[in-house]
Amino acid sequence: MLSAAARARFTVVLVGARNPANIGAAARALHDFGFSDLRVANDFAPPLEAAQLEAARSAVSAQHILASTRRFDTLSEAIADCTFIAGTTAIGERELTQPILPLQQAAPLMIAALNSAEQAPGEGEPAHRVALLFGSEKTGLTNDHLSHCSLLTTIPLFSPVHDRHLSMNLGQSVAVCLYELTRAGFEGSRDLPALHESPASEQDRERLTELLLQVMQSTGYTRRYPHNSNPAFVRRLVQQLGRTHREAMTWMGILRQAQWRETRESDGY
Amino acid sequence: MLSAAARARFTVVLVGARNPANIGAAARALHDFGFSDLRVANDFAPPLEAAQLEAARSAVSAQHILASTRRFDTLSEAIADCTFIAGTTAIGERELTQPILPLQQAAPLMIAALNSAEQAPGEGEPAHRVALLFGSEKTGLTNDHLSHCSLLTTIPLFSPVHDRHLSMNLGQSVAVCLYELTRAGFEGSRDLPALHESPASEQDRERLTELLLQVMQSTGYTRRYPHNSNPAFVRRLVQQLGRTHREAMTWMGILRQAQWRETRESDGY
Repeated sequence: MLSAAARARFTVVLVGARNPANIGAAARALHDFGFSDLRVANDFAPPLEAAQLEAARSAVSAQHILASTRRFDTLSEAIADCTFIAGTTAIGERELTQPILPLQQAAPLMIAALNSAEQAPGEGEPAHRVALLFGSEKTGLTNDHLSHCSLLTTIPLFSPVHDRHLSMNLGQSVAVCLYELTRAGFEGSRDLPALHESPASEQDRERLTELLLQVMQSTGYTRRYPHNSNPAFVRRLVQQLGRTHREAMTWMGILRQAQWRETRESDGY
Repeated sequence: MLSAAARARFTVVLVGARNPANIGAAARALHDFGFSDLRVANDFAPPLEAAQLEAARSAVSAQHILASTRRFDTLSEAIADCTFIAGTTAIGERELTQPILPLQQAAPLMIAALNSAEQAPGEGEPAHRVALLFGSEKTGLTNDHLSHCSLLTTIPLFSPVHDRHLSMNLGQSVAVCLYELTRAGFEGSRDLPALHESPASEQDRERLTELLLQVMQSTGYTRRYPHNSNPAFVRRLVQQLGRTHREAMTWMGILRQAQWRETRESDGY
């Protein structure tokens, strides 16, 4: 699990991003997964005001991230305070001169770096600042950009032989990477919402089985379809009735009503 | 690993999607992760031409997916041939009445369903068609939509206490879900039980819902317990009836028999 302090040491750098909608989408992904430090490295002034407008439309709550997004003229300046630099790249884009890890193998290394200061408390070990770089949709990260990286990673995509299009939409890439980074933190997590209704008990199910068998009998179903009427199969059907007590009680009511009508009619009322 | 055949049995349904850019982004995510069946369920004609234009700009290679994207007037029609329906939802959107699994726990269940036909080759075992539903950005999936689902899943997001904004951008959500589906394909997902009988289809379930509503009506249950008789709640009950076609057909038989007796008696035979 990434602590708030660890999350604060994580930086996303968009290198050469030109499309304000993509900057807004990246900001929204940071917000969604609990990060906040977004930087843009460009040799021209990026249209951040347009991005803010775009984001205002689609992600009101990411505005605080865009408001504190910093622009740098070069990648070197953007990552000057970072200690661990990871770059995202599409396989097949160019001749790679560094090893490349699929995202699910790269994420634990970034998480370990983010957590390293906390794993040795009191040791005075300096905290890592981890930067994850994303290139522009058009060109990706150049070899020069990649040369800053100690780790290269890629999102495994489906690549039929004759398909050369292997890069993802920028906002989607950022979302998938941040999902993978926080995914590990949620594994085995227990704070999922509980059902708001009480579950059906085994007793509920036994009563339902008995009643359903009676209905099947009295309506003549058992006689017509004996192979579907043995108690084990009927219990298997009832297993599926009523995950919640309310649902089980509803079935009881429906079946009782059918049974009551049936008995009443048979008795000649 | 999902085979090409298994991928072909996976369907993404956008329910109430209005923004053509989002439809284009979803199509691109399908393409990136090796899926192809995209459907749109709407009560109005969605601007697919606009989506195609948008996608043409940002994702040339997803055009073949948009070209074969089908539009349906209702969700029921969109998923009529699907046997396993999963719905995405944001935690906290409403009072949940069904259990909800984080994406990483839900994905293996979808993969098991997709792979079930292939786990018993030669058995003539029919294949599941799995549908994953996404609601509109504005409203998400409604309780009525969720009542069609046998599985609810959510992308775990970062949720500080006072932040009510918990929903992701639609295109990013689709990308993250498909990433998780293909990611889990690389891990051991083989130890899940396969269905040895043909699964019940959404069409089976719709017919059961209709018949059950008739039985509830004719036996007088509806009159006595109107709060348990609304179609969304009844559909939720039927969700649990008949995981397999044989089970669904058995329920049809039981209810038909009850209905037949009821009608016969009422007609004074």
